[in-house]
Amino acid sequence: MIIVMKPKTPQEEIEGMKRRILELGCEIHESQGVNYHIFGLVGNTSTVDSDRLRAVDWVEKVIHVQEPYKIANRLFHPKDSIVQIGNRKIGGENFAVIAGPCSVESEEQIISIAEDVKSAGAGFLRGGAFKPRSSPYSFQGLREDGLELLKSAREKTGLPIVSELMSTEHLNRFIEDVDIIQIGARNMQNFELLKEVGKIRKPVILKRGLSATIEELLLAAEYVLAHGNENVILCERGIRTFEKYTRNTLDLSSIPVIKKLSHLPVIVDPSHAGGLWWLVEPMAKAAMVVGADGVMVEVHNDPANAKCDGQQSIKPERFRTLMNSLKELAKIQNKVIQENI
Amino acid sequence: MIIVMKPKTPQEEIEGMKRRILELGCEIHESQGVNYHIFGLVGNTSTVDSDRLRAVDWVEKVIHVQEPYKIANRLFHPKDSIVQIGNRKIGGENFAVIAGPCSVESEEQIISIAEDVKSAGAGFLRGGAFKPRSSPYSFQGLREDGLELLKSAREKTGLPIVSELMSTEHLNRFIEDVDIIQIGARNMQNFELLKEVGKIRKPVILKRGLSATIEELLLAAEYVLAHGNENVILCERGIRTFEKYTRNTLDLSSIPVIKKLSHLPVIVDPSHAGGLWWLVEPMAKAAMVVGADGVMVEVHNDPANAKCDGQQSIKPERFRTLMNSLKELAKIQNKVIQENI
Amino acid sequence: MIIVMKPKTPQEEIEGMKRRILELGCEIHESQGVNYHIFGLVGNTSTVDSDRLRAVDWVEKVIHVQEPYKIANRLFHPKDSIVQIGNRKIGGENFAVIAGPCSVESEEQIISIAEDVKSAGAGFLRGGAFKPRSSPYSFQGLREDGLELLKSAREKTGLPIVSELMSTEHLNRFIEDVDIIQIGARNMQNFELLKEVGKIRKPVILKRGLSATIEELLLAAEYVLAHGNENVILCERGIRTFEKYTRNTLDLSSIPVIKKLSHLPVIVDPSHAGGLWWLVEPMAKAAMVVGADGVMVEVHNDPANAKCDGQQSIKPERFRTLMNSLKELAKIQNKVIQENI
Amino acid sequence: MIIVMKPKTPQEEIEGMKRRILELGCEIHESQGVNYHIFGLVGNTSTVDSDRLRAVDWVEKVIHVQEPYKIANRLFHPKDSIVQIGNRKIGGENFAVIAGPCSVESEEQIISIAEDVKSAGAGFLRGGAFKPRSSPYSFQGLREDGLELLKSAREKTGLPIVSELMSTEHLNRFIEDVDIIQIGARNMQNFELLKEVGKIRKPVILKRGLSATIEELLLAAEYVLAHGNENVILCERGIRTFEKYTRNTLDLSSIPVIKKLSHLPVIVDPSHAGGLWWLVEPMAKAAMVVGADGVMVEVHNDPANAKCDGQQSIKPERFRTLMNSLKELAKIQNKVIQENI
Repeated sequence: MIIVMKPKTPQEEIEGMKRRILELGCEIHESQGVNYHIFGLVGNTSTVDSDRLRAVDWVEKVIHVQEPYKIANRLFHPKDSIVQIGNRKIGGENFAVIAGPCSVESEEQIISIAEDVKSAGAGFLRGGAFKPRSSPYSFQGLREDGLELLKSAREKTGLPIVSELMSTEHLNRFIEDVDIIQIGARNMQNFELLKEVGKIRKPVILKRGLSATIEELLLAAEYVLAHGNENVILCERGIRTFEKYTRNTLDLSSIPVIKKLSHLPVIVDPSHAGGLWWLVEPMAKAAMVVGADGVMVEVHNDPANAKCDGQQSIKPERFRTLMNSLKELAKIQNKVIQENI
Repeated sequence: MIIVMKPKTPQEEIEGMKRRILELGCEIHESQGVNYHIFGLVGNTSTVDSDRLRAVDWVEKVIHVQEPYKIANRLFHPKDSIVQIGNRKIGGENFAVIAGPCSVESEEQIISIAEDVKSAGAGFLRGGAFKPRSSPYSFQGLREDGLELLKSAREKTGLPIVSELMSTEHLNRFIEDVDIIQIGARNMQNFELLKEVGKIRKPVILKRGLSATIEELLLAAEYVLAHGNENVILCERGIRTFEKYTRNTLDLSSIPVIKKLSHLPVIVDPSHAGGLWWLVEPMAKAAMVVGADGVMVEVHNDPANAKCDGQQSIKPERFRTLMNSLKELAKIQNKVIQENI
Repeated sequence: MIIVMKPKTPQEEIEGMKRRILELGCEIHESQGVNYHIFGLVGNTSTVDSDRLRAVDWVEKVIHVQEPYKIANRLFHPKDSIVQIGNRKIGGENFAVIAGPCSVESEEQIISIAEDVKSAGAGFLRGGAFKPRSSPYSFQGLREDGLELLKSAREKTGLPIVSELMSTEHLNRFIEDVDIIQIGARNMQNFELLKEVGKIRKPVILKRGLSATIEELLLAAEYVLAHGNENVILCERGIRTFEKYTRNTLDLSSIPVIKKLSHLPVIVDPSHAGGLWWLVEPMAKAAMVVGADGVMVEVHNDPANAKCDGQQSIKPERFRTLMNSLKELAKIQNKVIQENI
Repeated sequence: MIIVMKPKTPQEEIEGMKRRILELGCEIHESQGVNYHIFGLVGNTSTVDSDRLRAVDWVEKVIHVQEPYKIANRLFHPKDSIVQIGNRKIGGENFAVIAGPCSVESEEQIISIAEDVKSAGAGFLRGGAFKPRSSPYSFQGLREDGLELLKSAREKTGLPIVSELMSTEHLNRFIEDVDIIQIGARNMQNFELLKEVGKIRKPVILKRGLSATIEELLLAAEYVLAHGNENVILCERGIRTFEKYTRNTLDLSSIPVIKKLSHLPVIVDPSHAGGLWWLVEPMAKAAMVVGADGVMVEVHNDPANAKCDGQQSIKPERFRTLMNSLKELAKIQNKVIQENI
């Protein structure tokens, strides 16, 4: 950590800052430039709260050298983490395909889609039971009943199920019912929820918030990791920008960046990012070639009558085409798409 | 609501869409342009889910004419809403000043600050007990103990207290202990939490999310209103942009816009917006002249040792100066700053 | 075009608006909803200035149905445009690889790099002679001398050359010297410059501005097209967002979107987007699979001593690896990489 | 300047970097932390190109301590700069009001508006002759004829005139005809234009680009200053964000920030920022209380028939009301509005 003092800081303030740094248990390296006096802090600075240093009157700026997250940091864990779900894996050489409808609507719907995506080669079934919707007047999901239907679909197809948890209240239910708990973009910084899923061992897909930096996403993951749950899978799903044609802007550069900064697996959701079904295929392919560990895709048998997100869902036939493209690219990328296990 | 069909939509698709609209219980106005066929939907469109229409293959776009929120909409409630907290009011001609530390740290600290801000003219005391922090390694607040200390400060000074609720688990405690429940920016779309505070009658300050549009803020308020709680106060606290010098960009234009669209009171938090203490005074004054119903300001007796947000907290002396400026401007703006009740 | 009048608009204002629309030469379709009176304008609305209608007191909003650009619009020109440069083509099934240094520094440098990229399979040589730099104290390019050196490199290698034009003053020089004129992101809305390059026939690469929407990019292209130059190639090079790790956020979704809206070829610049050399390869591959018509890549023989953008330039060896990946993907994508012509 | 080397940088690379820094003429302060080796550069680092250091393989990051602009920097010029235009001043205690139509349309229009704004107390007349428009099909201004009409208005009213220069081609004409040259937001980084207006002595209003950081605005000003023209007035006019209700988001925090970083005067354009006439008055008042040195406001006698920007123009009556509000606030802010000189 580096502290830059303001030009013309009085000597007693320089001394005061020195004492303060020493009290933090850090060693000091000092450097006096033409206008600025600079302190380098050496030692364990991960517990030093830089905001408190910034609050000192004569401090110009405080600069982090080391990333603020530890357990998620590849520096201290160079090997890729691999998350195990039954006999399936996410991370490393594996490319996971998670597919299914935005929301579970009926037994017939979810089983039919589950069978379709399974036969095309998907490894996991997704389906929303509790739905976060911008408007209180939109369909809010079948809730507990939705989880029951997902379980039926799992029984029929053998596909592990992924569903979104919105509140600590339903945590016990999710621990029992689902195979991977999804934390949605809007809850990425719902810290009470992160702490609770940190206390269990169930794999968690943590989606990047609409305006979260990569560093904040890794810090949110750190909440889960620091509370004891190592099974974290990150998910890029588009960030909010000024561009209006697409719902969000899929930040595909974030994939190689996250791979550099962290050992955690990271997947891409091309459906929510663009909000347009015809963007799903090209962006899923792009996710593969930039090095993602998987994709999560919305598939619906009847998008025009879907209870949510129909405009961004692809039909089973198109999903089949997409799977074929992904399999072709997987060979070039040396990735394995696990299916029919 | 307006539906634009794609160029060259086949006649049977036009007919299909017509049937679909009639099934929704709406009347149709049709218009055939050179390239586009357009439907105008007349009737109660507030329950029509536009995303489902967008999912139809031949639909080019769906345009909302009416705002998607109802209870929050000024169109149906032209008069300003005024929220009553004991003998104090927020909204209408009243300008509320809410002041206090980022987080409650000790009895001495909170009582000393409470007395300082009260004597300067603040109408409400704020203080964080449960703290949302980006890093799991930062101070997380005194939690329940913090609420106890806030209650002591209220007893001493008579100031109503505002504190942030982060999880439905603590709701009962907050109903008993605090006078206004704050929902933080990161939880603006924590819909399960919104529904729960919608079921009570305690006033709620709802902060705008870092990347929430004004429409989304009003829809989040609609969640609380639609569940029965009319005591909602909105709060602009800065949005995320590319500018790096300030922590966020305070969107002051949002105040007159919200006033036009909604009857709900709206206040400004100039401390979190910029993240720099020397921006608090000018931006609080600006909040007054653009028509806000109040400000929420971080005040700390010793910012350099504050456990959080010291760099954006002002000292009690400076708060006194700020209050004097606000009182002067209040006269010009025909606003009343309630104090010493 | 659709005009929505405010709730409770007086009848005489409705009549006034009707007359106004008729004067514009458009037919009217009217629709009276519960709260809103709506006009649909049918006819040639491309010359109607919607801002002037928005300025009328009782107008709530004006909505475009048809895109505001015409010549660039795929609706009126369904086939892909192909730009011819000597015996090379950009657009259609062709995938163009443009490579070279950020700036021309010396004869030795430009010729060595030109030979390297040619032997690896690049089809075009890029090199900056006039450099737009944020700071007046940074290297501003060799200017006219740089153009001379580019010409030598072309003579040696046969590669057509691409260089950035910053001012109408140098236009004649560029017409003579270069094969493709680049208009940089910062000049995307330098309308006087766009008009001038519209008057010539030399191919133009038009880069998307840092905060330009896709619609604004197409309108900027429309300036060039409307003045008579049909040889426009668009270029996505990253947009400005809140994310700080990468210099810009490469918006790859824009490629399929532009392909849908327009017939113009569109390429990707993965070097400027991320600003980090190790992002170039994955993002260039992603450009290929999302359907771009080419990439423009910064290659430098000695990045650590490059006069600009060294941190985002790749070395010739790495460029060779990238070319191999692109050739492999081209087969899957049914694209042709023209080389050694 | 601070250079952080990557963890595990080999000793020979550390030595190489040391030699490189010494060659730059800087002194070195070294510091070896647990994971990172850090160099502090002391001396004249303003000419050191940090991008070239970033391009070195083993460099993790390069951090600026000193701002990259010099002449614009308040550190080296603590007193406020005041720009003189005839007997009027912008900067210091003076609050400038610049008013007039978006574009000059006719002699009658410009003279009538000029007289109106003068009688209400405006100090300067603005009017566009050359208009930057997103679409080639929109009104492009009366060009040279517009300048003639502005001159007539100046003759009638004595108000100095401000108009936008879009190309170096017209520079000589502008030097003769206008009193203040405006560089528009879209040309903020048109560096060839900046250099040219840097060579003259005519005052320049430099508008912040839609996606320009405050630092980039100051660097653009530095181009003008470094070429010799000290008469630079900055202008905040809204930045591009995700919010769609307003055309841009007026960043009022930028005013106190610019005042801290630079000695240059800075004004606010509340008309272009929001793009809505009813936002002009509150935002102009806010500009005054946050410490701006003036406002530039669009006034039109007949907004509904204005050839551009009618929806953001206020009528002369409303301008009069605004002037009264500003005069009232000026007293509190200790600012002087010069009029009727």
